Amino acid sequence: MKTFLKIAYLGTAYHGFQVQPETVTVEGTLQDAIEATFGKRYDVVGCSRTDSGVHAEGFCMTVETGEDTGRIPARSLPLAMNIHLPPDISVLDAREVEDSFHARYDVISKEYEYRIWNSRVKNPFTIDRAWHVPRMLDTEKMNRAAQALVGKHDFAAFMAQGSLPKGGTERTVYFCRVTRGEDGFVRIRIGADGYLYNMVRIIVGTLVGIAFGRFPEDAIPSMLASGNRTLSGMTAPPYGLYLVKVNYPDSSM
Amino acid sequence: MKTFLKIAYLGTAYHGFQVQPETVTVEGTLQDAIEATFGKRYDVVGCSRTDSGVHAEGFCMTVETGEDTGRIPARSLPLAMNIHLPPDISVLDAREVEDSFHARYDVISKEYEYRIWNSRVKNPFTIDRAWHVPRMLDTEKMNRAAQALVGKHDFAAFMAQGSLPKGGTERTVYFCRVTRGEDGFVRIRIGADGYLYNMVRIIVGTLVGIAFGRFPEDAIPSMLASGNRTLSGMTAPPYGLYLVKVNYPDSSM
Repeated sequence: MKTFLKIAYLGTAYHGFQVQPETVTVEGTLQDAIEATFGKRYDVVGCSRTDSGVHAEGFCMTVETGEDTGRIPARSLPLAMNIHLPPDISVLDAREVEDSFHARYDVISKEYEYRIWNSRVKNPFTIDRAWHVPRMLDTEKMNRAAQALVGKHDFAAFMAQGSLPKGGTERTVYFCRVTRGEDGFVRIRIGADGYLYNMVRIIVGTLVGIAFGRFPEDAIPSMLASGNRTLSGMTAPPYGLYLVKVNYPDSSM
Repeated sequence: MKTFLKIAYLGTAYHGFQVQPETVTVEGTLQDAIEATFGKRYDVVGCSRTDSGVHAEGFCMTVETGEDTGRIPARSLPLAMNIHLPPDISVLDAREVEDSFHARYDVISKEYEYRIWNSRVKNPFTIDRAWHVPRMLDTEKMNRAAQALVGKHDFAAFMAQGSLPKGGTERTVYFCRVTRGEDGFVRIRIGADGYLYNMVRIIVGTLVGIAFGRFPEDAIPSMLASGNRTLSGMTAPPYGLYLVKVNYPDSSM
C-alpha cells in the first residue's frame, strides 16, 4: 500500500513542483514535511510537473509509505502534515491506495484554469495570482475560437520551442471554455489527457491574440496544422495558471 | 476643487492607512505616488483609519489639489498614479469634487466585510487574507445573534480597552449579516455610521464565541448594556477584515 495525497499550493515562492538541485520546490518542501511527520523520508510521485509560479488547487501525489502505510491514519494526515508545512502549501485530503496505483501514469485527464483580471485598473488582490489584461476581451469570440482545440491534435505549435516531449506531440483536449465572471475575472478552463510544455499558457496567449485581432477567429486550425510555434501566440505568464483537477479511473479520488 | 480617489489595497505590508513616523503606511505610499504624478506634494484626507494588516476594496480619500485640480484629467488619474504605486495599492477611480466635500466628515456609513476560511484544513490562497477557523461554524445562529447589534447602541463593550473615542461610544449599526458562501468562506458584513477601535474585530470574535457555545445566543444585549470589554469575545485577527464600501450623500461616489 501507499498513501495518496491531494494538495493545494500557492506557487509564487516555488520553482515548480519537481525537486531540482539548489532551488526551493513544492516536492522538496513536502518531502521535508513527510519526514517531520513520519520520522522517515519516503519517495513521492506527483501527478505532473508544474512550472515556477504556477498554482494548484487539487494536485495529486503518492507517498511511497510501503509497510508503514496506515501507521498514521489517512484521515489524520492532513492536519498532521500541515503543522510541518509552510502556509502556502496545504494537504487537503489523504487516503490509502494499492501499490498498483500510479499518481502520474494513471491520470485520465487534468484540468487547468487560467485567470485573467480583465479591467482597466490593476487589482491589488491578484498580485501573482492572475494576469492583468487591461483591454476588454471579447470572451465569446475567444470561446468560439477555442473550440478548434477540442479533439485529438498535434499540438507542436502550442509547445515551448526546444522542449523534447515523451511520446510525441499529440494530445487530446476534452474541452476548452472561456467565460467572464461577474467578479471581473475571465477564466479559461481546459481539460486534456496531457499537456506539452507551456501548452496551456500558449493557448491562453493565442486566444488573447485572437481577442485583440492579432489573429483571425479561425486561426487555430491552421496553427495546429503547421506545427510551427512561431505561428501561434505569446506565452501567457505563469502566475495566472492553476492546476484545478486531476481525474483518475476511480472518480472519487 | 479637490480630487476624490477610490482605492483598493492589500494591507499586509502596511502599518494601516494613516501616516505614522518611521513606518510604511498606505497614506505615505500614496503621497509619494501623488508627488511622482503631479510633481507636487498635496495633503490627503482619508475616509477613516484602518489597522495594520487590514485590507480595503473601496477606500475613499481626497487629494487637496486646489488650483491644480483638473490639470491631470480625473479619468486619466487611475492609470497615471498606478504606474507610481506598488502592486498592492491601486487607484480604482477618480473625480473632481467641491472644496466643501470632506472625505471623513461627510461619510454616512461604512461597510466592512470579515472573511473566515471555515474548513478543517488551511487554504494556501487565504494567507493574510482570511481568518482560518477549522471548527464548523453555525452561521444561522451567528446571524440570529448578530441582529441584536443593529440599531443605536453604546458599543463600549466592543471597543479595544484604553482607546479614547471622539464623541463618545454610541454608534448606529445599520445591518450585520453572517452568510456562508459556496466557496467555503463565512462572511460577516456590517454597515454602521462609525466604528470604535477594533469594533468589527471584537464583534466577529464574539459571534464566533457564540457559535462555539462560549456565550449564549442571546448574550449580545447584556454585553452592550454592560459596557464592559471583558464580557465580550476575543478580537479577531486583522487580516480577515476588508473595508468594502463607503457611503456619501452623493450615492454615485
